[in-house]
Amino acid sequence: MWFNQCMTCEFKTIALIGKYQSPEVAEAVLRLANYLRGLGIAVLIEQGTASSTGLTAGFTVASYDEIGARADLAVVLGGDGTLLNSACRLAAYNVPLAGVNQGRLGFLTDISREVALDKIGEILQGRYTEESRILLDAEVLRGGQRVFHTVALNDVVVNKGELGRMIEFDLRVDGEFVYTQRSDGMIVSTPTGSTAYALSANGPILHPSVEGIALVPMCPHALTARPITLPDHCCIEIVLLPPHDSRVHFDGQSRYDTRAGDTVRITRSPHRVRLLHPPGYSYFAMLREKLHWSSTPRHG
Amino acid sequence: MWFNQCMTCEFKTIALIGKYQSPEVAEAVLRLANYLRGLGIAVLIEQGTASSTGLTAGFTVASYDEIGARADLAVVLGGDGTLLNSACRLAAYNVPLAGVNQGRLGFLTDISREVALDKIGEILQGRYTEESRILLDAEVLRGGQRVFHTVALNDVVVNKGELGRMIEFDLRVDGEFVYTQRSDGMIVSTPTGSTAYALSANGPILHPSVEGIALVPMCPHALTARPITLPDHCCIEIVLLPPHDSRVHFDGQSRYDTRAGDTVRITRSPHRVRLLHPPGYSYFAMLREKLHWSSTPRHG
Amino acid sequence: MWFNQCMTCEFKTIALIGKYQSPEVAEAVLRLANYLRGLGIAVLIEQGTASSTGLTAGFTVASYDEIGARADLAVVLGGDGTLLNSACRLAAYNVPLAGVNQGRLGFLTDISREVALDKIGEILQGRYTEESRILLDAEVLRGGQRVFHTVALNDVVVNKGELGRMIEFDLRVDGEFVYTQRSDGMIVSTPTGSTAYALSANGPILHPSVEGIALVPMCPHALTARPITLPDHCCIEIVLLPPHDSRVHFDGQSRYDTRAGDTVRITRSPHRVRLLHPPGYSYFAMLREKLHWSSTPRHG
Amino acid sequence: MWFNQCMTCEFKTIALIGKYQSPEVAEAVLRLANYLRGLGIAVLIEQGTASSTGLTAGFTVASYDEIGARADLAVVLGGDGTLLNSACRLAAYNVPLAGVNQGRLGFLTDISREVALDKIGEILQGRYTEESRILLDAEVLRGGQRVFHTVALNDVVVNKGELGRMIEFDLRVDGEFVYTQRSDGMIVSTPTGSTAYALSANGPILHPSVEGIALVPMCPHALTARPITLPDHCCIEIVLLPPHDSRVHFDGQSRYDTRAGDTVRITRSPHRVRLLHPPGYSYFAMLREKLHWSSTPRHG
Repeated sequence: MWFNQCMTCEFKTIALIGKYQSPEVAEAVLRLANYLRGLGIAVLIEQGTASSTGLTAGFTVASYDEIGARADLAVVLGGDGTLLNSACRLAAYNVPLAGVNQGRLGFLTDISREVALDKIGEILQGRYTEESRILLDAEVLRGGQRVFHTVALNDVVVNKGELGRMIEFDLRVDGEFVYTQRSDGMIVSTPTGSTAYALSANGPILHPSVEGIALVPMCPHALTARPITLPDHCCIEIVLLPPHDSRVHFDGQSRYDTRAGDTVRITRSPHRVRLLHPPGYSYFAMLREKLHWSSTPRHG
Repeated sequence: MWFNQCMTCEFKTIALIGKYQSPEVAEAVLRLANYLRGLGIAVLIEQGTASSTGLTAGFTVASYDEIGARADLAVVLGGDGTLLNSACRLAAYNVPLAGVNQGRLGFLTDISREVALDKIGEILQGRYTEESRILLDAEVLRGGQRVFHTVALNDVVVNKGELGRMIEFDLRVDGEFVYTQRSDGMIVSTPTGSTAYALSANGPILHPSVEGIALVPMCPHALTARPITLPDHCCIEIVLLPPHDSRVHFDGQSRYDTRAGDTVRITRSPHRVRLLHPPGYSYFAMLREKLHWSSTPRHG
Repeated sequence: MWFNQCMTCEFKTIALIGKYQSPEVAEAVLRLANYLRGLGIAVLIEQGTASSTGLTAGFTVASYDEIGARADLAVVLGGDGTLLNSACRLAAYNVPLAGVNQGRLGFLTDISREVALDKIGEILQGRYTEESRILLDAEVLRGGQRVFHTVALNDVVVNKGELGRMIEFDLRVDGEFVYTQRSDGMIVSTPTGSTAYALSANGPILHPSVEGIALVPMCPHALTARPITLPDHCCIEIVLLPPHDSRVHFDGQSRYDTRAGDTVRITRSPHRVRLLHPPGYSYFAMLREKLHWSSTPRHG
Repeated sequence: MWFNQCMTCEFKTIALIGKYQSPEVAEAVLRLANYLRGLGIAVLIEQGTASSTGLTAGFTVASYDEIGARADLAVVLGGDGTLLNSACRLAAYNVPLAGVNQGRLGFLTDISREVALDKIGEILQGRYTEESRILLDAEVLRGGQRVFHTVALNDVVVNKGELGRMIEFDLRVDGEFVYTQRSDGMIVSTPTGSTAYALSANGPILHPSVEGIALVPMCPHALTARPITLPDHCCIEIVLLPPHDSRVHFDGQSRYDTRAGDTVRITRSPHRVRLLHPPGYSYFAMLREKLHWSSTPRHG
């Protein structure tokens, strides 16, 4: 390995975060930890990861907040779900993330585990491209009071609650009434989320550099309903109308049960996610791979 | 009328442009011209409009270039097609446009003819909102040489040529290969065009403030093809593969027959269109009206 | 009224069924009941209707089974939901149904309440068209045993359970494996249901005379998933794969919580629904009205 | 080869039809011809095939009509386009067809060339399944007179003419007005065609046993337009409204330029196409293969 020492590199402390409650990432985490230590880099193991993998002895175990305060880079070993979760937990800090997938290539975890050490090594040498992705700030208001607040990197999905009945809501943008919709729900998606759940509901793909937020109706009652992309500085409010209850999902990872009359308010977070990609990364190549766009070969 | 004189107003010279070869706009043009002259405003009649309406005596007739050089405002009387055409012809100048529809309300011609004088009067007093819309620069390259160039406000559509057979092309963005597609064609649309032809091909609506360009495949052979929105600073190239000929349409108003091997290159124009809207204009209200989003009434 | 006596008419006994737990249909039910009695027709009031409207004194109150055994016609006063429910409860009998909507025109309740007496009068004289609609037999199998069974006129919808996570299932048709799908769920729809929920999920409209059943995926993970219409004599099985729970909905009226490993088996019921329409009924006219197909006027 | 003689088999005379003007099928045709002659079967070479491949010496060359009159089976060597064309030319006869693809597997040419002799051998022994597919009868009426008539196995597509402008037409079904539509055109598709062009325009897949015809609008101006499937005994009429010209395409193989006022009338043909499939053929397996439905592997 041509890269032996991290005397001068910008990443003095690196956190490792493994897939939630997945002992099987232990080996990959250990291998990467040893590799980094061999380079003189301080390694933090996220505490949930440490506990599910048993990698506690001889490593510094750290909470997300400690990682946020101390790490120069967080490497996530898992799938896109793991990276979504880590990104939201570290949102208030400015720590860049790199994702090593442990199974199939992900949209966000774009480093293949087979070549993980090489690719991380390249990043350590400063050979990477950095991408900035927006986060959504989502809050639920009840009687004017905030009763819930979180952030999301992919999407905020307002949909049918436990009874599974169609919901009805007013959409307001920057305080202006847009429409009343009856549907199964609405997906509010970042460009990052536009290739996730929103895509399966016929939403448009948004390149990560587009400063927009997509609103994608789910099974709308009116046939004229269509997805719309708004500038990402908009304040989007979904006001739930009686008598329906609904449920709000954040990145498909957490949820909140709302009541009729509640407002779900979504804005671009002041924080952003920094993603580091090793050399050779291409958004379009990733789309071709993940969406099977290569499946129409050139004829003749 | 409370607005009697345009001593100090910013619009000293106003051009009037009527629907192409439509004598029936004569009365509306004449009425507006007389109204403006009564306010001491210099009026220019676009020469094609003058000739089809017979409004030549006593008016200053002007070409688009003269309008561009001299007018402080151009009022278009017609439909969206008339405004599209005028906007592209005046693209190199900085003249703002206001659109008075002569039939059904348009997306761009948002002033109803019944209240045209009142609304124009409000604009003259400085009571308006100004919106800036991007234009597309489109050129056809053959053997590295530009063989055609134009601008478009709505869309550039590359589709089947005279033989009506599926075409095949490579899509390149900022020089990078994205995919090879076999389809009936591709719609490259501005936010302005996203509610026009692109919408009928299941493209996403883009709010005019989104700095994006939508690529909407038409009847793609691969079922995984999806619309994608790119940042509007991208250079989009469609490289036509043998043996297919194709035809490129610009705003549905002009066209160019391409040959296999030609490249259609599309970028955001350095020029923009300035649209003036009288008080009360709302993009969302216009969508509700035009797309019948009001058709699902609130129940209960 | 030119129609005074029902001496010879085919409908000697008519049941009246009102919207579930809706006292407000009392007046319409009473008016129709009196009209029918005036013609010498025996009137049965469905017992739930009798109890919610208080129309018990002086009327014969009957259960659905009694209606099935004795009535020559059942008139439903409510919306499409009321008719769906009545049709399924009377499925095993051969009683024809006519639907009088109490609000907006329905796909199934096509007689407007304003002209209900006139239209029912026409039907009594034998001036009607009869339409036959298929029903779906749906059963849930667990370990080879049937644990649930019902019928549906619109659709059987297998979707996400209480946790709201994507489900995964195998589709089998006549015993043959078709595909494994990950999605929010699947709508299995009759032609009758093709203009209901299935339509909002981009399903195809099936004319009631098409002997087919549509399978419409909901937010499928794979972009190549598409709705498919099968002949209505097929046996359709959805085998739920671990670890996901799901919920099955029948006409949006009842539901059953399934477990991983359960099979939802859907076949055409041996019973059919007979719908009577007064003169002037047109399926296409109804589509135009309900789907706003008239919203594109002929230009020029 | 266990199958040596065709003494008693039902296929005494077999016609071979190669891809149009494709000398490269010569070898495959010759090999199959020799194989069949070795079994004592009389072989006819379609005359266009004979002329483009040079296989004239020693073979009986026959026109489509002669094939129709004399052959017990026609084996098509080419792609789906070749089979479409052959099926329409032989429509008036009752000759079954089997398709051997010469490139990628087709929806209709389901016998792979690598195993063609084995599979044809199985068919000769009577080990095959027969499928019957409907054909469309299409005629163009002008001033009440038929000016064009043909048949189609996949689809009849009415779309924009040479000028490439949106068309406008009335749709009539069994003489009843359905709607006026402005769009790029309309695809009228058989179940066979439902996996071809209609699918790329978001049409529904129709299983070949569904007795239906799908109408799929292309880029309709009204957002409420939806594909609809009609029973295949319907008479479908598309009445072209002024001022638009249009062009009608039949299976993408032939076309006719219509004028405003013309009516395109489409009915199920009295003739049907008989397709023979060797053992192991499965419609669903073919869909999985062609539509990449297998691309979502079962996880876990």
